[in-house]
Amino acid sequence: MPLSEEETIKMKNNLGRELKNASVKQLNSLCESLRSTIYETVSHCGGHLSSNLGAVELTVALHRVFDFPSDKIVFDVGHQCYTHKLLSDRAERFDTLRKEGGISGFPKREESVYDCYDTGHAGTALSAALGIAKARDLAKAPYQVIALIGDGSFQNGLIYEALNSLKLLHTKILIILNDNGMSISPTLGGVHEVLDELHGERKLDDVALFERFGLRYMGPVNGNEIGELLPALEEAKEALNEDTVLLHVVTQKGHGYPFSESAPMQTHGVGPKAPKSEYSAALGEELCALAKNNPKIVAVTAAMADSLGLRNFFESYPDRAIDVGICEEHASVLAAALATQGLKPYYAIYSTFLQRAFDEIIHDICGQDLPVTFCIDRAGATGADGETHQGVFDLSYLSFIPNLTVAIPKNIAEFRKMIRLSSTYMHPLAIRYPREGEEGEAGTVEIGKFEVLHSTMSDIVILAAGERCIRLANRLQNALREECGKDVSIVNARFLRPLDRELLSSRPEKFVVTLEDNVKIGGLGASIAQFYQGSGKTVLSFGYDDVFLPHAEVPSLMEKYGLGVQKILGELMKYACR
Amino acid sequence: MPLSEEETIKMKNNLGRELKNASVKQLNSLCESLRSTIYETVSHCGGHLSSNLGAVELTVALHRVFDFPSDKIVFDVGHQCYTHKLLSDRAERFDTLRKEGGISGFPKREESVYDCYDTGHAGTALSAALGIAKARDLAKAPYQVIALIGDGSFQNGLIYEALNSLKLLHTKILIILNDNGMSISPTLGGVHEVLDELHGERKLDDVALFERFGLRYMGPVNGNEIGELLPALEEAKEALNEDTVLLHVVTQKGHGYPFSESAPMQTHGVGPKAPKSEYSAALGEELCALAKNNPKIVAVTAAMADSLGLRNFFESYPDRAIDVGICEEHASVLAAALATQGLKPYYAIYSTFLQRAFDEIIHDICGQDLPVTFCIDRAGATGADGETHQGVFDLSYLSFIPNLTVAIPKNIAEFRKMIRLSSTYMHPLAIRYPREGEEGEAGTVEIGKFEVLHSTMSDIVILAAGERCIRLANRLQNALREECGKDVSIVNARFLRPLDRELLSSRPEKFVVTLEDNVKIGGLGASIAQFYQGSGKTVLSFGYDDVFLPHAEVPSLMEKYGLGVQKILGELMKYACR
Repeated sequence: MPLSEEETIKMKNNLGRELKNASVKQLNSLCESLRSTIYETVSHCGGHLSSNLGAVELTVALHRVFDFPSDKIVFDVGHQCYTHKLLSDRAERFDTLRKEGGISGFPKREESVYDCYDTGHAGTALSAALGIAKARDLAKAPYQVIALIGDGSFQNGLIYEALNSLKLLHTKILIILNDNGMSISPTLGGVHEVLDELHGERKLDDVALFERFGLRYMGPVNGNEIGELLPALEEAKEALNEDTVLLHVVTQKGHGYPFSESAPMQTHGVGPKAPKSEYSAALGEELCALAKNNPKIVAVTAAMADSLGLRNFFESYPDRAIDVGICEEHASVLAAALATQGLKPYYAIYSTFLQRAFDEIIHDICGQDLPVTFCIDRAGATGADGETHQGVFDLSYLSFIPNLTVAIPKNIAEFRKMIRLSSTYMHPLAIRYPREGEEGEAGTVEIGKFEVLHSTMSDIVILAAGERCIRLANRLQNALREECGKDVSIVNARFLRPLDRELLSSRPEKFVVTLEDNVKIGGLGASIAQFYQGSGKTVLSFGYDDVFLPHAEVPSLMEKYGLGVQKILGELMKYACR
Repeated sequence: MPLSEEETIKMKNNLGRELKNASVKQLNSLCESLRSTIYETVSHCGGHLSSNLGAVELTVALHRVFDFPSDKIVFDVGHQCYTHKLLSDRAERFDTLRKEGGISGFPKREESVYDCYDTGHAGTALSAALGIAKARDLAKAPYQVIALIGDGSFQNGLIYEALNSLKLLHTKILIILNDNGMSISPTLGGVHEVLDELHGERKLDDVALFERFGLRYMGPVNGNEIGELLPALEEAKEALNEDTVLLHVVTQKGHGYPFSESAPMQTHGVGPKAPKSEYSAALGEELCALAKNNPKIVAVTAAMADSLGLRNFFESYPDRAIDVGICEEHASVLAAALATQGLKPYYAIYSTFLQRAFDEIIHDICGQDLPVTFCIDRAGATGADGETHQGVFDLSYLSFIPNLTVAIPKNIAEFRKMIRLSSTYMHPLAIRYPREGEEGEAGTVEIGKFEVLHSTMSDIVILAAGERCIRLANRLQNALREECGKDVSIVNARFLRPLDRELLSSRPEKFVVTLEDNVKIGGLGASIAQFYQGSGKTVLSFGYDDVFLPHAEVPSLMEKYGLGVQKILGELMKYACR
């Protein structure tokens, strides 16, 4: 039976004492209660459901056995930290999860002393825990450091780099491998096979694989059973006096909720409402259509085939569909190499995760001028996931890479045309788009050619990049008509690189306004300003402010952080309504 | 006895036939001859000596056993490809090594069909070979694919990500692990220990470690003995019908040249002449001085302690000096975590390699606003190493990251002051500098404050970033005085972030010229242009053109790719000499 609401609140508020003294039965009741809170909260706030449901017992057991915040725990990715938030100091505020001004869906040092390290991207927890432990050793402090890492992250190169330095750093941490056989999609690759075999009969050479790195392997234990977890964690804690310990915990993603158990991929990230049309669906459709007639088309992804719209492609063309797991760098080099042999790779990825492959974009793909197409989803502000997931840097970090073409479709119809166009384009190409959009209509698309949407005789032209900013441009246009009767021109600035030099050179307007769903510094506006240097034109660029955007709905982020209609209007009126 | 010159040329020119038919004795003579050519060429052209000397026999044996360019070989890092170049189609041009217009020190697809994949940064070869092999399989082509990888690269996360996808990709390649126990500095970490034990008695669990990933382990063989290599390679080639093979080859870095054998770290990269003063030496001195009185100072590096000037620090403060091997990402997260616990980490790295840690700069260090100091060496054009090693993107990719401060010293004295200042600065800080410079003198340094070097009543001010560009500004100043008697102001624009808003707002000049040793797009000039938007000022920014800079001396690169005095002068005279 779940605890009553009163009992739950009491228990959450008196953790220091009660959690430590609770019986296994009471802890199980607590888990039921926590699970129910998480389910209900995610139902109305959105968030990561199955990963959090799977980690309830494990987190409760950790809070029982260790002393947070004296002891430190780093959550890899951080998409399993809800129970930790409920058990530390955020139970009362938990119904504000992912809402503007509310608590974050990821660990945040600013939010609580119980969060010692911010995460969001995969694979950082082991390095972070080692750094914290090294600092502890230098300070001769007594606390324990724990890294909680899913098996999906164990494919990531960062984890390996950290494992490889365990002996070198001469420190001791507890690594909890939370093995649910899933990352976002089912986990792939050699390491997974090792883990799979450890589930059953422990093979000496598999254990040896881990122990070669200088750690002591313990487990596997059932991570959804408090009764198994408590003694295992006590034993691991004891062993930390001697060794770095890897405790292998097997959990069930979505544990406790039948639908979530059977469909963990669909319930990994859940939104509070159904989205409108998605660019990802169009990507899947267009790539499948291209692949049908062109055997050179290959799709590459890093553990995100479903959310990128590629499920159908993967089922229809399994030979030409490659999911390497959470390995953004490897995926890039692999795509580059496929292209050297005449194939036409499409590498689909979220904007924020592509940051991981920045060097490979430069060194491998653009350095060799290879025809890889990046399909960059979740570009621009992404909303409720917050700082670590905003896609607002890509127009800046892609603006200066030689040989690269960067396209920004105005709607899904134009995106489809860009994908079709890309199939015969023999240079690196990045197409960046948000999650949701309107299908709309599109005219001809040509590399490096902008599209004039509205041309007037006024002295102001707005260059807008992407669907959100074209909508913003239309609102500004209407507002300026109302404010001072001025009708401004609007151009769909659909290529960051190459700029449409011909169009830009021929525009007669004195004032050039740029709008982009990206940080203002270094993106489209900066490139346009440099293009017009010495021309006598005044370039006014608008984009996000120079801060990390917190979690909030996209319209609110635009309004508050640099792309608000009224604020831009105020600026423009200085020039437009004189 | 080495072959005569005539015999050598003949052999090189008739490889297809002669190399295939040569006896082991003849091949050994060829190796002596090649070694001598490499040694002499590097003596006058500079380049990578010890890594190339170590790989002579291995490369000759590979050319004997495999059929290039039908078969494909990817050289990891590429700093061991000289023998390959001599044996393929570049023997006659080998004396142009690393010279402008001559052959590159790294593999280059543009240079020869024998080079199938460009490299320069560590860890890409396995992913690249897998991609090439996958393309071969899709095309049902019959050739073999080889990845030649040093043990140092085996620490890199990219290699692990690629290993982890071996089974998934269902393809077969030959991985040659060129194990010389060195990367640039001696190789560190868990994997190295495994390799070390394999040198001696082959332990089953170590072999199992590799075999878990789905490959067949063969070796170790002495990679400096043609007589051992040929049968081992034949056997490996045969085994490729069934499996992906890892052939473990043990070589001696610098083999054949006593000085290079005993000092491989000093002879890894060799320049044709002794450098002037180096920023790296100053870094080592200043960090040691700081560390003496401040126990919070920690140095972190990714396999480059020597070339970054940190040897003395590592010897004096071993507890606070961390070299994680070629793991740029891990080093960043480790530094971030150390900083969360109140330590003051200095992460020293080359500009081009920091690209690997781009996501971690954003996600871990700046996202958490942690006081990590990046000491970014080899910034700006770096010269003879060519495209893959130029440090010309950092001002662009660091320009838009919230919370980050970016400093650009005008000389070594100012660099010292910045390092001292950094020790009490509690936010992320990047200091970028070239290899060589003048000690010079420096005044007070304050975060975000430019320095006026020369102020006049003219209508032009030059904002110059870094030593090279301040020299360039002085030359432009002199030239403008001569051309039209105009004396322009010069400002040391020593912070890209934050800009000196106060100074910029108060400058009276109508024309603002920016100079930076970085690509023009998205760097200092772009930020200044955005700062002045709507002000009526004309910003003229100069930096490198939008291309990958090839290998050439730095002055020549500046002259030809956007920072030439005459070209800039021509532009400025349009405004200055009207």
